Amino acid sequence: MSATASGDGSSHPDCFDLQAYLNSQTLAVNQALDRFLPRSQTKPATIHKAMRYSLFAGGKRLRPALCLAAAEACGGDNLDTMPLACAVECIHTYSLIHDDLPAMDNDDYRRGKLTSHKVFGEGIAILAGDALLTQAFEIAAQCKGWPRYSHQTVFRELTHAAGSLQLIAGQVADLEGEGKAISASQLKYIHERKTSALLCCAVRLGGMSANCTRSQLQALTDFGYNVGLAFQVIDDILDITQSSEQLGKTAGKDAAAQKATYPSIIGLDRSRQIARRLTDRAFAALRPLKGKSSVLEALASHLLKRDR
Amino acid sequence: MSATASGDGSSHPDCFDLQAYLNSQTLAVNQALDRFLPRSQTKPATIHKAMRYSLFAGGKRLRPALCLAAAEACGGDNLDTMPLACAVECIHTYSLIHDDLPAMDNDDYRRGKLTSHKVFGEGIAILAGDALLTQAFEIAAQCKGWPRYSHQTVFRELTHAAGSLQLIAGQVADLEGEGKAISASQLKYIHERKTSALLCCAVRLGGMSANCTRSQLQALTDFGYNVGLAFQVIDDILDITQSSEQLGKTAGKDAAAQKATYPSIIGLDRSRQIARRLTDRAFAALRPLKGKSSVLEALASHLLKRDR
Repeated sequence: MSATASGDGSSHPDCFDLQAYLNSQTLAVNQALDRFLPRSQTKPATIHKAMRYSLFAGGKRLRPALCLAAAEACGGDNLDTMPLACAVECIHTYSLIHDDLPAMDNDDYRRGKLTSHKVFGEGIAILAGDALLTQAFEIAAQCKGWPRYSHQTVFRELTHAAGSLQLIAGQVADLEGEGKAISASQLKYIHERKTSALLCCAVRLGGMSANCTRSQLQALTDFGYNVGLAFQVIDDILDITQSSEQLGKTAGKDAAAQKATYPSIIGLDRSRQIARRLTDRAFAALRPLKGKSSVLEALASHLLKRDR
Repeated sequence: MSATASGDGSSHPDCFDLQAYLNSQTLAVNQALDRFLPRSQTKPATIHKAMRYSLFAGGKRLRPALCLAAAEACGGDNLDTMPLACAVECIHTYSLIHDDLPAMDNDDYRRGKLTSHKVFGEGIAILAGDALLTQAFEIAAQCKGWPRYSHQTVFRELTHAAGSLQLIAGQVADLEGEGKAISASQLKYIHERKTSALLCCAVRLGGMSANCTRSQLQALTDFGYNVGLAFQVIDDILDITQSSEQLGKTAGKDAAAQKATYPSIIGLDRSRQIARRLTDRAFAALRPLKGKSSVLEALASHLLKRDR
């Protein structure tokens, strides 16, 4: 399944075709999600159509890719890791459906397509989010468990990242910060929780699925935290520098909603510097993985170069 | 912790103080939920206040009581069962918060208090539901696991009952049935999923937490299914026979929303007969538990006699 030779440490980001790797992993993740989810026509069809509509709306599968690459960096494989990679993607998708609701960010487009509530109505969109969150834990429960990381440990990892102290805390703080003057440290609090927590969780779960050592897990944690923050800073930058067409979603929404962003608080140039510094820290964090992390490095580089 | 002598089979529903038992278990469940949930002032305080507002709004704790009584009937105890009892209550509460939203049943009152979105706004109410659902799985992950029932089995039980084929399927079918002429069998489909699934799950989890045998689990499953259906039929009956004040929520809502109910489809008398027949089946299901199920029997009787 892997499109890279990094497992033996022989590959290098410069001579590695990341796009081919991402395409291959996206295909594998999509096939797995298709197997894990009830069919579209399963009764009641509306909810399964709505779950699949958002889950297969062209997401970049960045979190699953990071999860699978982290597993590979620790000697794991796609098959063992896939339930966890898919669980994280279901949680990510549920959070987008609920964030897009009129009571939250009130967004009509996501990934170039109408958002769930615009297609299915608010009631079904709320339930589709609920169902994907529940489905995430059902899928995670299908992992095999590992000597160092039991099902219990895996579940606690996922529930913590998705819970009221992390992912949901970020959305609450984001919601409450709209139209207010907030500080750079408050914005960091939001980004750490709204984006970095689940991204870091994806990377850590990948390591766990390879039964990684404690030091490997620490390296992946530092990597995931920094890549996650970098990813969100870049999202903020893209929101003001790109058009809606380029982004596939409504551009300039943050400014329109009077949401604080890195560029609005500290300026565009410093925001770009911070994104670069966070990525450097992520690279540095990978050193203990001793040359097996070339795919993770390539993914981190990719995050800084993306334009949508 | 237990207020009954049923554990040794010596008690009998007729000479057993159910109200004292329920009061004692409600207190124990409330104390456990208080320990499991983040404090009200934990940042971001809004979400934890909202989670606690709905969770401690005077719920009858019927599902936890059934869960704990099922464990007792199989020789288990409160301590081992409590994480699962509390997880089920968190799922129940999340489903109520989301069901009450304007996009769903649009209810202003629940248990005599303003609903979550009336107090905290729709955005926070949606997130409080999300957080309680996630919290449920976090709490369930704290159970100790049992020889016949691993953490994996317990998670699958919970995610199935709460997922798009059961609890959420019921809410979807309910939403889609509003204002339409639906048959008695379609209504049964809704009630099986919207109410019976989680109630049955509570009873099954109680048995699992006592490491029950396969035949004990089957008995509890039949019991839970029938009690769950009876419970919903009675809810339908009370909605048209009681005032809002007596119910602590808006009465007559089903009729106002043109929702099909047992009384509206088959009449009040036949609905009462069905509730009684379902309870009889529930009693019969308990026979394999050989006299250790007096508390479960008392709870089932209580469900038929309740007036709110």
